[in-house]
Amino acid sequence: MLRGSGYITALIVVAIVAAVAPIGSSVAAAGVGALYRTGDWRSEKHVPVIDCPVEFKAGEPTTVTVTVGKEREHPNTAHHYISWIRLYFLPAESTLPYEVASFEFSAHGESILGPDTSTLYVDPKISVDFRTGVPGVFYATAYCNIHGLWESAKAITIIE
Amino acid sequence: MLRGSGYITALIVVAIVAAVAPIGSSVAAAGVGALYRTGDWRSEKHVPVIDCPVEFKAGEPTTVTVTVGKEREHPNTAHHYISWIRLYFLPAESTLPYEVASFEFSAHGESILGPDTSTLYVDPKISVDFRTGVPGVFYATAYCNIHGLWESAKAITIIE
Amino acid sequence: MLRGSGYITALIVVAIVAAVAPIGSSVAAAGVGALYRTGDWRSEKHVPVIDCPVEFKAGEPTTVTVTVGKEREHPNTAHHYISWIRLYFLPAESTLPYEVASFEFSAHGESILGPDTSTLYVDPKISVDFRTGVPGVFYATAYCNIHGLWESAKAITIIE
Amino acid sequence: MLRGSGYITALIVVAIVAAVAPIGSSVAAAGVGALYRTGDWRSEKHVPVIDCPVEFKAGEPTTVTVTVGKEREHPNTAHHYISWIRLYFLPAESTLPYEVASFEFSAHGESILGPDTSTLYVDPKISVDFRTGVPGVFYATAYCNIHGLWESAKAITIIE
Repeated sequence: MLRGSGYITALIVVAIVAAVAPIGSSVAAAGVGALYRTGDWRSEKHVPVIDCPVEFKAGEPTTVTVTVGKEREHPNTAHHYISWIRLYFLPAESTLPYEVASFEFSAHGESILGPDTSTLYVDPKISVDFRTGVPGVFYATAYCNIHGLWESAKAITIIE
Repeated sequence: MLRGSGYITALIVVAIVAAVAPIGSSVAAAGVGALYRTGDWRSEKHVPVIDCPVEFKAGEPTTVTVTVGKEREHPNTAHHYISWIRLYFLPAESTLPYEVASFEFSAHGESILGPDTSTLYVDPKISVDFRTGVPGVFYATAYCNIHGLWESAKAITIIE
Repeated sequence: MLRGSGYITALIVVAIVAAVAPIGSSVAAAGVGALYRTGDWRSEKHVPVIDCPVEFKAGEPTTVTVTVGKEREHPNTAHHYISWIRLYFLPAESTLPYEVASFEFSAHGESILGPDTSTLYVDPKISVDFRTGVPGVFYATAYCNIHGLWESAKAITIIE
Repeated sequence: MLRGSGYITALIVVAIVAAVAPIGSSVAAAGVGALYRTGDWRSEKHVPVIDCPVEFKAGEPTTVTVTVGKEREHPNTAHHYISWIRLYFLPAESTLPYEVASFEFSAHGESILGPDTSTLYVDPKISVDFRTGVPGVFYATAYCNIHGLWESAKAITIIE
């Protein structure tokens, strides 16, 4: 986990955003980006991992899988779980990102008998088919109910 | 598609619900169930198809795939698309269903240049891993932005 | 609460749906509507209450409020809470319902220190502005993390 | 709108994130924060505006309203609309943000007759009741189906 460097990044981002904020802005804080943390998914279990080819055939459905806890399993209990994974795509040479999909994970073991009694759990991993005719970068975000917001990114290119 | 019989079902449900509605109720209609339609997914492209084993090993992650348009492809354009798929599970011998997961599909080709110009599309098919220690019934629901609510169900059993 | 009559309704619906199900259908259960319960919101704390005028001015933004626990407060703790409220609208003389909005309530007191330690809670009540040129029926649905799916409905008319 | 300075900020953030990225990282881009834009809501119609008291009574339900297009109305048509508003809260002296709520706006005029034929629209404005015992910062985010991700923030304090 990159807590140390993430914290320094956040501080620098705060400074930069403050510097470019409009006069009269009521924004009292760094942007929402400072809320997200990342790191090496092999050691930090919260980081979403994007698995897909690095080359997409233009316009062809291609499976994209996003997993939280791919190497080190994330807990999935009534008290500690991944609430959602959201996937974005920023086309190259564009500043306008698109939301691809948003996935809520709702079953985490609770029932009227108490926490972790239902036996029902949905794991924080999803697969969808995505089509694109342009290269760009996927951004995966994830939310842990007690450890906040996490992110990762993966660039892809297009082959005709 | 079961438009005919679905409509008759809806009418009958309206009559039954009206008959059992509480005195003073302001409910002027059948329950939300009457909003959902179903049919044979091989001929009706809106019906979500649940693919998974019919036997789950107790507590083992098992992949469940839900597809809209499995046999007859559903359109995926800026004007006509599947907005979401939501998956529920009702344990046998229970009247309390659980939401398993909710999946929003957000990219349907629109951009600042107009409908169907971005080249980006996410298809209405998802896969998740689910664990259960009890048998029950999956319910998949889907929403088409212009053709409303659709549903299907699939029962599973447990092997130890 | 209408547990008794609701149960009878469910049984009858099962019979009807079975009767109209397509040959070869793998659907092993009544439709998703049988998963929803309703009742008198003054005594049953789970029933969503739709508050809005019964007459909408055609095309004018009109506030619709949906509340779970309006008379008898629903618990809002890390172990027992309302996860979401979803609002639909069925135009009169149509069989195609529309989703109006979907509201997820995410903060229920949990933190890294354990359940009910964060002091942060969002209550199960929302307000949105809706415009329509046609009469119809609102359907509100809500999900309790341990008591399942609930519904209510409210008809509106249009004044020019 | 801060397109110019936003772009420069993004470039600097890219450089910083690259500098602190772990060895072997596959992250090919700046963090997700660089995808969000902000500005003065009085001139930029996409910026979400958070309206609530700046002082919350500890533990008391307090209404928070988030509006996109508060001063300059944002379009709400089948081709151009606000898809969602999401609200976060970062407690002071914490690095772990919480999602408060997520609001999807689903009705934007489309029907089987084509774009902008249903007469049904939900506007990009929501109100919820939130309780907190600690001061912190709200972050509101919003997504326009063709103009991407937007954000704003508002700090609050606590009075006992």
